[in-house]
Amino acid sequence: MAEHQVFTIASIPADGVGQEVVAAGRTVLDALAEQSKGAFSFEWTEFPWGSAYYAEHGVLMPADGLETLKPFDAIYFGAVGWENVPDHVSLWELRLNITQNFDQWANIRPVRFLPGVVSPLRTAEDTELDWVVVRENSEGEYAGLGGRNLSGRGPGNEVAVQSSLFTEKGCERIIRFAFDLARTRTVRKVSSVTKSNAQQYGMVLWDEVFARVAEDYPDVATESVLVDAMSAKFVLRPEDLSVVVASNLNADILSDLGSALAGSLGLAASANLNAERRFPSMFEPVHGSAPDIAGQGIANPIGAIASAALMLDHFGLHAEARRLEAAIEATTAAGHLTRDIGGTADTAEITQAVVEALAA
Amino acid sequence: MAEHQVFTIASIPADGVGQEVVAAGRTVLDALAEQSKGAFSFEWTEFPWGSAYYAEHGVLMPADGLETLKPFDAIYFGAVGWENVPDHVSLWELRLNITQNFDQWANIRPVRFLPGVVSPLRTAEDTELDWVVVRENSEGEYAGLGGRNLSGRGPGNEVAVQSSLFTEKGCERIIRFAFDLARTRTVRKVSSVTKSNAQQYGMVLWDEVFARVAEDYPDVATESVLVDAMSAKFVLRPEDLSVVVASNLNADILSDLGSALAGSLGLAASANLNAERRFPSMFEPVHGSAPDIAGQGIANPIGAIASAALMLDHFGLHAEARRLEAAIEATTAAGHLTRDIGGTADTAEITQAVVEALAA
Ligand SMILES: CC(C)[C@H](C(=O)O)[C@@H](O)C(=O)O
Ligand SMILES: CC(C)[C@H](C(=O)O)[C@@H](O)C(=O)O
Repeated sequence: MAEHQVFTIASIPADGVGQEVVAAGRTVLDALAEQSKGAFSFEWTEFPWGSAYYAEHGVLMPADGLETLKPFDAIYFGAVGWENVPDHVSLWELRLNITQNFDQWANIRPVRFLPGVVSPLRTAEDTELDWVVVRENSEGEYAGLGGRNLSGRGPGNEVAVQSSLFTEKGCERIIRFAFDLARTRTVRKVSSVTKSNAQQYGMVLWDEVFARVAEDYPDVATESVLVDAMSAKFVLRPEDLSVVVASNLNADILSDLGSALAGSLGLAASANLNAERRFPSMFEPVHGSAPDIAGQGIANPIGAIASAALMLDHFGLHAEARRLEAAIEATTAAGHLTRDIGGTADTAEITQAVVEALAA
Repeated sequence: MAEHQVFTIASIPADGVGQEVVAAGRTVLDALAEQSKGAFSFEWTEFPWGSAYYAEHGVLMPADGLETLKPFDAIYFGAVGWENVPDHVSLWELRLNITQNFDQWANIRPVRFLPGVVSPLRTAEDTELDWVVVRENSEGEYAGLGGRNLSGRGPGNEVAVQSSLFTEKGCERIIRFAFDLARTRTVRKVSSVTKSNAQQYGMVLWDEVFARVAEDYPDVATESVLVDAMSAKFVLRPEDLSVVVASNLNADILSDLGSALAGSLGLAASANLNAERRFPSMFEPVHGSAPDIAGQGIANPIGAIASAALMLDHFGLHAEARRLEAAIEATTAAGHLTRDIGGTADTAEITQAVVEALAA
């Protein structure tokens, strides 16, 4: 008799619509567990961290927050950011605090075109589009290095330096990750993105590592594309893409562009992986806390639900991950759409539709 | 009797299709001069600089090249980059050498949707889209600061740092330029782009300067948008845009994205302005040397011709600039399209069509 598997999940809905979409994802995952007839279940622990916590305690999460999270199998995150906390504070003290300290160096952001969702891109109509952005998540342009200085120059003459840090090891692990991922896909191709013609240090190191690692994967096609040209390629030749690997900022831009082309940032899923599994990985929708619609029950939960599918993959529940993705497709194909993608359905209706599609 | 005006232009076609499109632009400008019945003319001096020059002399341009260019009213540039010279060498020694030393700190890149050109963007069909990217062209991510180092860490442990430099003065002049430009447009709005939530030094300085300068332009609407969100906005809400001002790299990415959304990088024009007119400004298509189609006479000359229209504006020939833009529109509207935008016309046919539209 197969053993019953229990996966422990720390959920951190945090701010705004983060609350609503994490609840939606949880409902869907629990429905899946229910259907597994005892094969697996999820043990949820919810943490009330975020900007409301900050209002009370002056911090986004308690000092021992990371220690508390460490034993969990995964973290399921909503969104952080609210008017009572400066953006960079809420980000660095909560979300980036977790990704950095748990060395979640691989950020996976699939770009999925869903049936029934009208893409702003004309070609999406008759072309199968499906690619994934692999984002370096630990260094690069987000290294936080730099400073500002005014001394000796007088008013109006302030100077600021912002430095990116690229390590050979950091480049290598994310590039290898991208190649390994490409091997699991129908189209075995990795597109590497830099701006090495204008940025001659970090980006050139990246290019060199990419060329070297590529030699270990002769079965995978490769290309090196400049970030400006790649943003054009997302629009003009998206059918050429399979795995796109890029530094922290370049991938941030490209993944948002990809989600927009697929119809809405509300659809976009992401996984922040510590691939070595020394620390828990974190799964979260790409969108933010969306103060303008928060609390109204109308947020698009698909980004969060699709992130839950990535979490299933991380648990080794691949068949269930595929089933969940199919249920999402069935939902949008049947015309259940939130406002951001031209529909009228609310969060609960979409969640319900996904649960029903899973049961069908 | 009105005086005859002579504008001296240094043309540098440089590499690949640069040769073909600069010739096209020159033909069109000379036709305009012809039609002016003696009101103005252009005095061209062509410089054979670029990668071919490098092959012979080991440098992209002679040591006194900048001195030679300095007296001209404008520089009309093609494209640089060929296989015999590393990209960063050809760029820095020719194009960036000119933009940096002539302090061409304002790079203007209109995003124009032309009639008869099918945009990849569905909404472009029934919405008037027209915005312009104003790019900081002298510092930021292109400062060239940084280094690579391996010492003491052993193989596989190389580290690279790439630094961006933002000065208060540099931010202020480009932001003011954007506001002044917005005042000349139907929609008086400036969107400022940074990534200040993740990059807390240079980008925050930019944001502060933007907020301060905005106070001097109470008649101009403003917004501050993160670069990832802006790339999504280009796709999802382009009708909201009028003037978009951004740092060197962010604007590089966004302007390529804009051209792609308009149908092709071959359509995109740009002006590198030294707004104080202490040095000549430079006008050039955004596209590169395109080795794959160079020498075949099929390159799209519209980017170069539209750049010539920006040069006319710089000369104060505003009515002629508008006439030339109308001639470009008449050309594409009549179905004269190069291959990159789905047609079969070659460079000469497009050039001829623009000249005829000017005469009509
Ligand atoms: C070639 C490259 C350095 C250049 C730039 O980024 O400035 C190009 O992409 C452009 O947009 O003109
Ligand atoms: C909020 C911001 C710092 C964040 C990022 O750039 O990492 C967001 O844009 C994202 O893509 O998850």
